[in-house]
Amino acid sequence: MPSTAGQVIRCRAAVAWEAGKPLVIEEVEVAPPQAMEVRLKILYTSLCHTDVYFWEAKGQTPMFPRIFGHEAGGIVESVGEGVTELKPGDHVLPVFTGECKECAHCKSEESNMCDLLRINTDRGVMIGDGQSRFSINGKPIYHFVGTSTFSEYTVSHVGSVAKINPLAPLDKVCILSCGISTGLGATLNVAKPKRFNGGSIRIGSSWPCCARIAGASRIIGVDLNPKRFNEAKKFGITEFVNPKDHDKPVQEVIIEMTSGGVDRSIECTGNVNAMISAFECVRDGWGVAVLVGVPHKDAEFKTHPMNLLNERTLKGTFFGNYKPRSDLPSVVEMYMNKELEVEKFITHQVPLSEINKAFEYMLEGDGLRCIISMDE
Amino acid sequence: MPSTAGQVIRCRAAVAWEAGKPLVIEEVEVAPPQAMEVRLKILYTSLCHTDVYFWEAKGQTPMFPRIFGHEAGGIVESVGEGVTELKPGDHVLPVFTGECKECAHCKSEESNMCDLLRINTDRGVMIGDGQSRFSINGKPIYHFVGTSTFSEYTVSHVGSVAKINPLAPLDKVCILSCGISTGLGATLNVAKPKRFNGGSIRIGSSWPCCARIAGASRIIGVDLNPKRFNEAKKFGITEFVNPKDHDKPVQEVIIEMTSGGVDRSIECTGNVNAMISAFECVRDGWGVAVLVGVPHKDAEFKTHPMNLLNERTLKGTFFGNYKPRSDLPSVVEMYMNKELEVEKFITHQVPLSEINKAFEYMLEGDGLRCIISMDE
Repeated sequence: MPSTAGQVIRCRAAVAWEAGKPLVIEEVEVAPPQAMEVRLKILYTSLCHTDVYFWEAKGQTPMFPRIFGHEAGGIVESVGEGVTELKPGDHVLPVFTGECKECAHCKSEESNMCDLLRINTDRGVMIGDGQSRFSINGKPIYHFVGTSTFSEYTVSHVGSVAKINPLAPLDKVCILSCGISTGLGATLNVAKPKRFNGGSIRIGSSWPCCARIAGASRIIGVDLNPKRFNEAKKFGITEFVNPKDHDKPVQEVIIEMTSGGVDRSIECTGNVNAMISAFECVRDGWGVAVLVGVPHKDAEFKTHPMNLLNERTLKGTFFGNYKPRSDLPSVVEMYMNKELEVEKFITHQVPLSEINKAFEYMLEGDGLRCIISMDE
Repeated sequence: MPSTAGQVIRCRAAVAWEAGKPLVIEEVEVAPPQAMEVRLKILYTSLCHTDVYFWEAKGQTPMFPRIFGHEAGGIVESVGEGVTELKPGDHVLPVFTGECKECAHCKSEESNMCDLLRINTDRGVMIGDGQSRFSINGKPIYHFVGTSTFSEYTVSHVGSVAKINPLAPLDKVCILSCGISTGLGATLNVAKPKRFNGGSIRIGSSWPCCARIAGASRIIGVDLNPKRFNEAKKFGITEFVNPKDHDKPVQEVIIEMTSGGVDRSIECTGNVNAMISAFECVRDGWGVAVLVGVPHKDAEFKTHPMNLLNERTLKGTFFGNYKPRSDLPSVVEMYMNKELEVEKFITHQVPLSEINKAFEYMLEGDGLRCIISMDE
């Protein structure tokens, strides 16, 4: 056991003191892990839209001061009582949702929506005792989705930590703990494109395109930001549509391009109108639309029910239907086997002290993923 | 070849002269079948909601005079040019939709929405030459969905006629040409209940319950008409909910009854609020709602997209995803093998001359299927 086990660790963390204000690098105290918890040394983290969304706090109850961050790779520093599946030194990806392995969802083949550890963006404390493990001069700092990886050390519930191949480079596979896996799972596990001959798929926003892995022959990217088109080519997108270039709904444009609609579509922005377009652009008879992006709390999905009766399917996914502990290690193995090119998604890298740059890149729509290195 | 081949046949038919007015038994002329058409002697037909819906013509363009009827069993009288798959004497079920076997939908494993012969309720003529085969003193009478089975003889496109086992009793299996098969297919082909342990299913209206065949252990029937509850017991429904008995939305009642929602739900009324309830009562993680009922043309399906993101699936089906010619014969075989109890669905029988009684039974919500016998 390392010498820090059981002790409070003082380390650097990027603290969000107020909604929308630049993060501040502070020295924080990180308490030891309690029962069923683990303390992780974070080596690399990256910035995801969801961090920005809750940092802006426009659509939710603000909860500050808070340590954001949920895409990361690290090493177990110490474990709390009752933890048997992880030990210090294990390489891990902390995940914003969890897998207790006991509830009906964890026992179901189909669901990953664990009753105990399912994502809860309104909870800023540990599930075990309702306390935070972070503080500054004794004043608690809120957690974020059980991960809070914008800190050199963090504490997570064991059920939200995936043990991975120790040979996997953490500065690359860290991004598999959220976005890439969600997009990959949405495509492989949920859209399940059986019949992609001559078909096409719709990709929203800056989200990764995993359709090529799934064998799609035509991959249509839709985005309001033309900057993303060149990036998207790297991921195999074969055609682009910018809704701004057309005077009719984008679903009609896509239906014309494909003589009837795409086989599968994936919506990743969370914008409810984009969701409706993504659904209405799939072909009748067998089209499947998969919703990935998180909607505004007041959003309403509307469509004429005949669009469903004509044998279209509409489904949503949460984390690509992957079970964090059971399935994430195999996604890492896809990378290790060169089936998944993670490097393409990484467009920037900054040290923790420059984390606000990562926010700027994302807000400007510049690039895809920015890796934040804890090592300066 | 029988002596009537190639000649106009004069026979009795129940003609709808005006929306919502009782049908009138008339002597009609039925022209011989043209290329790719067959003329059928109808022995038994039954009344389905869809006939009543278009006869009332409240939501669509009225098209009268018209011969309704689309659930039926009969025998091929003669065939037109180019017809090789059917011959006089074959026992058949005419179907309101078709299967050309050439288009992308027919060639797809997943779809039954034939480009050529897909249901078209606005077409009152034959697809080949745009003419009607029915007339009274030379004045054409419109067809209905390519079947018009409220007539002793009718003409259909060969792609809309399923050849079945000649040993099957037509007074029973006639109802397999629409409603029962739609409900059965919605359950077996679309809802595909893999995991029905402790699960439940929601059945709307008077539609047949095929959930028991699929292995459901709890089957919850929802209907505004308490008369239907006793009938529904015969089909294996284990619990009933009448939305009128509750002061909260029925989806909330069902979620409470099932501690989180049903595994699968099937909506059969076409009422858009029932569709929304059917979707919102399925369990997150793996729930699937299947829409069967045909909605009003102005209906709008609305839900919060988080209901989808929580891993629920919403899909519609058309004719239970059965391909009429390829799949219907095997549904008849299910009856022949005693896997499907068709008799339970038949609550009334009348001769053609009393067809208006069948309309009354349906409008009063009395019973399920009424067989109309062409033999007086």
